[in-house]
Amino acid sequence: MTESPLRVTVWGEYVHERQNEAVAAIYPDGMHEVIASGLRDQLGQDLAVRTATLDQPEHGLTEDVLQNTDVLTWWGHKAHQRVDDRIVNRVVANVHSGMGLVVLHSGHESKLFMRLMGTTCSLRWRESDDREIVYCVNPGHPIARGLPEAFVIPRQEMYGEFFDIPQPDELVFLSSFTGGEVFRSGCCFTRGAGSIFYFSPGHETYPVYYQKEVQQVLANGVRWAGNRAVRRNRPFTSFESQIDWFENQSEAVR
Amino acid sequence: MTESPLRVTVWGEYVHERQNEAVAAIYPDGMHEVIASGLRDQLGQDLAVRTATLDQPEHGLTEDVLQNTDVLTWWGHKAHQRVDDRIVNRVVANVHSGMGLVVLHSGHESKLFMRLMGTTCSLRWRESDDREIVYCVNPGHPIARGLPEAFVIPRQEMYGEFFDIPQPDELVFLSSFTGGEVFRSGCCFTRGAGSIFYFSPGHETYPVYYQKEVQQVLANGVRWAGNRAVRRNRPFTSFESQIDWFENQSEAVR
Amino acid sequence: MTESPLRVTVWGEYVHERQNEAVAAIYPDGMHEVIASGLRDQLGQDLAVRTATLDQPEHGLTEDVLQNTDVLTWWGHKAHQRVDDRIVNRVVANVHSGMGLVVLHSGHESKLFMRLMGTTCSLRWRESDDREIVYCVNPGHPIARGLPEAFVIPRQEMYGEFFDIPQPDELVFLSSFTGGEVFRSGCCFTRGAGSIFYFSPGHETYPVYYQKEVQQVLANGVRWAGNRAVRRNRPFTSFESQIDWFENQSEAVR
Amino acid sequence: MTESPLRVTVWGEYVHERQNEAVAAIYPDGMHEVIASGLRDQLGQDLAVRTATLDQPEHGLTEDVLQNTDVLTWWGHKAHQRVDDRIVNRVVANVHSGMGLVVLHSGHESKLFMRLMGTTCSLRWRESDDREIVYCVNPGHPIARGLPEAFVIPRQEMYGEFFDIPQPDELVFLSSFTGGEVFRSGCCFTRGAGSIFYFSPGHETYPVYYQKEVQQVLANGVRWAGNRAVRRNRPFTSFESQIDWFENQSEAVR
Repeated sequence: MTESPLRVTVWGEYVHERQNEAVAAIYPDGMHEVIASGLRDQLGQDLAVRTATLDQPEHGLTEDVLQNTDVLTWWGHKAHQRVDDRIVNRVVANVHSGMGLVVLHSGHESKLFMRLMGTTCSLRWRESDDREIVYCVNPGHPIARGLPEAFVIPRQEMYGEFFDIPQPDELVFLSSFTGGEVFRSGCCFTRGAGSIFYFSPGHETYPVYYQKEVQQVLANGVRWAGNRAVRRNRPFTSFESQIDWFENQSEAVR
Repeated sequence: MTESPLRVTVWGEYVHERQNEAVAAIYPDGMHEVIASGLRDQLGQDLAVRTATLDQPEHGLTEDVLQNTDVLTWWGHKAHQRVDDRIVNRVVANVHSGMGLVVLHSGHESKLFMRLMGTTCSLRWRESDDREIVYCVNPGHPIARGLPEAFVIPRQEMYGEFFDIPQPDELVFLSSFTGGEVFRSGCCFTRGAGSIFYFSPGHETYPVYYQKEVQQVLANGVRWAGNRAVRRNRPFTSFESQIDWFENQSEAVR
Repeated sequence: MTESPLRVTVWGEYVHERQNEAVAAIYPDGMHEVIASGLRDQLGQDLAVRTATLDQPEHGLTEDVLQNTDVLTWWGHKAHQRVDDRIVNRVVANVHSGMGLVVLHSGHESKLFMRLMGTTCSLRWRESDDREIVYCVNPGHPIARGLPEAFVIPRQEMYGEFFDIPQPDELVFLSSFTGGEVFRSGCCFTRGAGSIFYFSPGHETYPVYYQKEVQQVLANGVRWAGNRAVRRNRPFTSFESQIDWFENQSEAVR
Repeated sequence: MTESPLRVTVWGEYVHERQNEAVAAIYPDGMHEVIASGLRDQLGQDLAVRTATLDQPEHGLTEDVLQNTDVLTWWGHKAHQRVDDRIVNRVVANVHSGMGLVVLHSGHESKLFMRLMGTTCSLRWRESDDREIVYCVNPGHPIARGLPEAFVIPRQEMYGEFFDIPQPDELVFLSSFTGGEVFRSGCCFTRGAGSIFYFSPGHETYPVYYQKEVQQVLANGVRWAGNRAVRRNRPFTSFESQIDWFENQSEAVR
């Protein structure tokens, strides 16, 4: 269990927002600031949030930052290849050891997410102002808390199946689009001791992260992953195990 | 493993077709005959198919019939309550012991399916000539064999989420509808030694079961369930188990 | 989300304890009192616990009690058949509508659990003072919180595979026994909006429910199910759904 | 569907067998030859098997070989790090595109398996002549075909939990060991269009691959993965998708 408040690091690539006027008009301080602000609004005192971006030293994700993060959120798109492999390895190791992870929208093709999934994470897409409808298919799931059976995102990039991910441990949301496509838009996975939530809505040219229902989903996702976050003393490795090792354990697995 | 040919029993309620002229015009000999015919076209020599209907003695599902059935398909709607509980128990016991089951469309609210699922199996519906698009979300699954990434059913009853089923062991198809709804339209479950496939397309007032892609899915579903079918000598029951029982077994579990 | 404190009802059959001296010696006030006491020790102020037993009117499970219960725990064995079908239906409906459920040990063959699973829930058993070792196979799961990688129950009834349950949504614990048997001893399921945890350790002739690790698992299980508990305004039923129903929703799904 | 016969490539590291006399005494021509021979005995005419080893050019796994392989089996241990990353990438791409994969014993820590799982795949181990008992927990699964409820491997390396893998799509076998450990010994996964079966029994210093039940499991595993094998024309990649793309498809997804 993590101590209150929940320590969240919101990672943003922060490239589009400084290169593209249309994006800058919607997210003048970067998408990460709007995401962080939405989390603060929803979680208030229960949350200690900071942000990190690609252009910071070590992309703002030093070992110290990650060791003190219960849940990391990840938005990237244009610059996936510029993320240093050493930092990817570090984040993967922290997820394996129990840090929660929330991957957003185009983060589906980040090195980080592909590494954790073991698949290409590819999909169909189209930018043509589709209306996205997000349906809850798991009404008892904590990430669905406080949300209606379905909600509408007026304009969104279409993300369509086949979405090349492993079968999720729990499927929470499905989406449809104006063009008739469907998408598994809210998916939970476990890797090692780490809990991962992928949520597809959210594009740089639409004000999706200002929408209240989306902010609720992100807050719920962060809380879900944080509730499962754990800090292991050592990473998982294979080791020789003595007879009757289980008789006198003192260390908790989490 | 079942011996060739695969023994399939197609069960049809066969009520609408004799009471409603519009339905009779599409399915003059009953939906079960069209379903059976589609299976024969697809599976040919590999298949031995028979049909059974509600108005037959024991609904055509005697213990002898079920003992000699590898896969049962089930279509019912109007007369779910007229299915005898004793027959439901018998079918459930045969599924538990390894008979395959393919449940179609409105069969979602049959006593049989609800008993096996443990949920209400309820959903949203609307009859307004929606176009249904069926997407494959599991391209390596045998039930997707030979099918395109998506196919269109020109006119269908809308079935929408929330569909109150347990999380499927494997999700194979998702559908969208003209109205924007989504549905988990192809779902695999295991209960005891029995394998169950639910497929939602197929309504009495549309010629869905004549469509080639739908016939392919049903043939694949029957083959998948048949490939997993098994005939246990005894039903599963709790029993006292002696020390070292596993040392000298002769009986195969399947 | 449920308000604090979490409202738990501990249901006990309370038959063995009044008929069998050996059982009475271990659980003089009934197993339910020891289970309830363990929860109080673990959860303290966060918990409001009450008990209910078979011999009370309506088995102590009136609609009012269930409507005000976030999580119900269930221990039964000898008298499964004496549980009124009307009460079983009522509990099932409350689980479907979002009440959490923790089923313990011999509760695997209660009418309630079999109804929710859709299988026989049968297993192998043996009473011969086996040592049970309980292993965590999902270290990020909230139900594993605070527990070691494995813990030992010195003397237990053997419960062995094949355990005839549907594949769990999440598998948390596996057990082995002196005789070499294995068992899926901690399993999570979802049915409707309700979350269900089954935990097999706990027998009337052994002091299992006094053991600290077991109490921790039960507290974690109750907290997990309570965190997912929801109170829907209406049960799930099929209904006709108008075009564009999702445009103006006010009701939260949970 | 793959054409008969099923084309299987048995890959063996083939290092221990040439360096260690004890291993050479059991597997004089290499473990891969015994595995291949067992498959031939079980599958006969339905199978076309070849072998490949680490010391061959491109480890015997040219693009041409993989394109003509329905199922690849993989045994490695001592020389995981000597497997060329380019070959690993090639095998991963073929699995994603629909080639089946059966990973054996110490292959759990191959680069290949870790890449596909996204976890460390670490475990506990001990070489002390444990007896392993393998239990079927999914009696309707094709990989359990013809096998008893449990079978005994008289002497085996212990592999124990926690086994750091993602939750399997289907769990088929669980094992216990003399020392009381448990292990998820038979696990099915899907990655892209490829189906993966991991089976843990099989160690270089024990004659496990000569045992009839183990040979049956491997034959079943190969047949299961082969029945799901598919050859996609192109790998999965993200791409822009036009409106109404689904209206006129000719290409089958598999």
